[in-house]
Amino acid sequence: MEKKDLPAIGIDLGGTKILAGLVANSHLVGEPVRVPTPSGPENIIKALLDIIADFQKEHLVLGVGIATAGIVDTESGAILGSTGNLPGWEGTALKHVIEERTALRTHVENDANAAAYGEARAAGLHTRTCSVMVTLGTGIGGGIILKGSLYRGAHYAGGEVGHIKISMENQRRCTCGLWDCWEAYGSGRGLLATALEMARGKSKDQSVICERDGDLTTKDVLEAAAAGDIIAGNALKKYHEHVAVGMSALCHVLDPDCFVISGGMSKFVDLKLIKELLFDRTLPRIAEKLEIYPSRLSEKAGMIGAAQIVLDAVNPIESMSTTSAC
Amino acid sequence: MEKKDLPAIGIDLGGTKILAGLVANSHLVGEPVRVPTPSGPENIIKALLDIIADFQKEHLVLGVGIATAGIVDTESGAILGSTGNLPGWEGTALKHVIEERTALRTHVENDANAAAYGEARAAGLHTRTCSVMVTLGTGIGGGIILKGSLYRGAHYAGGEVGHIKISMENQRRCTCGLWDCWEAYGSGRGLLATALEMARGKSKDQSVICERDGDLTTKDVLEAAAAGDIIAGNALKKYHEHVAVGMSALCHVLDPDCFVISGGMSKFVDLKLIKELLFDRTLPRIAEKLEIYPSRLSEKAGMIGAAQIVLDAVNPIESMSTTSAC
Repeated sequence: MEKKDLPAIGIDLGGTKILAGLVANSHLVGEPVRVPTPSGPENIIKALLDIIADFQKEHLVLGVGIATAGIVDTESGAILGSTGNLPGWEGTALKHVIEERTALRTHVENDANAAAYGEARAAGLHTRTCSVMVTLGTGIGGGIILKGSLYRGAHYAGGEVGHIKISMENQRRCTCGLWDCWEAYGSGRGLLATALEMARGKSKDQSVICERDGDLTTKDVLEAAAAGDIIAGNALKKYHEHVAVGMSALCHVLDPDCFVISGGMSKFVDLKLIKELLFDRTLPRIAEKLEIYPSRLSEKAGMIGAAQIVLDAVNPIESMSTTSAC
Repeated sequence: MEKKDLPAIGIDLGGTKILAGLVANSHLVGEPVRVPTPSGPENIIKALLDIIADFQKEHLVLGVGIATAGIVDTESGAILGSTGNLPGWEGTALKHVIEERTALRTHVENDANAAAYGEARAAGLHTRTCSVMVTLGTGIGGGIILKGSLYRGAHYAGGEVGHIKISMENQRRCTCGLWDCWEAYGSGRGLLATALEMARGKSKDQSVICERDGDLTTKDVLEAAAAGDIIAGNALKKYHEHVAVGMSALCHVLDPDCFVISGGMSKFVDLKLIKELLFDRTLPRIAEKLEIYPSRLSEKAGMIGAAQIVLDAVNPIESMSTTSAC
């Protein structure tokens, strides 16, 4: 096997767990490993080095791709922006440390961007003018692929789509401190907030979600909606509208070929309904040919995407190496 | 003079007038010509050919760049999308016709995109990762330049930023038929609508704009605000908020280096106030280094930009010819 045909190690560093695996051609080779995320930057780096060393015992690899929460300077591979899930992680010169200790080519990427790249490559969407991945989870993440290249913006904060302002009413404060961000409505937390608003003034006779007054969770709302509860069902329908509104903003900026919808909330989302709601809120020229796909890689997207960026940097794809974004 | 150093003819085809001039190095060479837009595609094409022939009588030119309202397939140079200002223009194979009749290299571009390109080149912003031009006029137009290249989207409708939905209240219908588009608030028409809302229930004693009940214009509101009228002043302040909200959405999608603000309304806009309002609505990492510039080329931007696209296609700029959008 030539060196250029070797797989890369993909690692997704999350707040609670680290997921890692060998990746070739946008696919996982063998089983991934999963370890709890230790606390503190030094312990995290030690865990990453251990994982890499374990893979190297049995495999030759081309390099390492690491998807991490936070804002990443992808040139230097340093963590620029903090993330609540990984305290103290800001300022870590991650690429530098990993390359120095392993002598392996390393790329560090924001996790939403890595996931977007993984999804686009796995679905063959990298030849398109614009693919947008939207991750509907506890918050909303996004990644933008323009003709096969990740669009990272001027300050590595491109695609922070969860903070698009979708209302001027100052009704909901986002965890970021801003008002009425998309993710205050279109995330799991957003659905919960919508359900609580709708349940206000209602009694336990009217909805099971009123029984759980103080400790209602997103899961409760989803289960109640599935069981036919009217108020929970209405909240879930409103949630679809909220998701469509943010996607509509993305449409009028980017005029994308397609969306890929992923994240923990995505399995409760009716993509056909989203498409209808989006169509009602978007110029026909943009909406008519728009495609909306479910995620193919789900929780593996970040790991696979980060590794695939390394593989594609060594072996550029014809359609990706010569493109510009027009 | 070598052929590659020749100027190009730039033409801006608007609903009421055609503006044309010779362009070299993002500047107008000599005086532009201005003729009324005739009615009907055939007459418009004849007017364009006459203008080109007149320039050719006295000058050797490299080609022709035409900025036009409507959605343009920039590969074929055909007008894909209609525009109310130019009835019957949709379907015109403009590039084909002009090239066939003049044997000159021709590029046809959407007018907002051409203006964005002109502004970016004139201000030396084409080396930046992302520059966004926002035209505040009767409506809101936009153009996105990514590392020197126009971003046109998957269906030539990228940068239709006036139709970003900034509210979920379904309070104002846009001329496009959608609800609560940015331009229903942030355009000249939007300011008028805001002033009328604020004047509702007020008397002539309270505001001069109440005197003009049925036939109030945007100009009346701007003049009253300048003269110290409280309600008109409040409407103008609210207008600044409305402008900032849409810019904030653009920030969270694109993370741009800079905005250029142009259009008829832009001279009534306090860019310092816009920046403050935008900062309050945008993640600090994106807002902190963001620059906001006034237009340099004003109404000449489309004409100059369209011609400059032709010039740059023949003589690629180093920093533009090798870029991708990441």
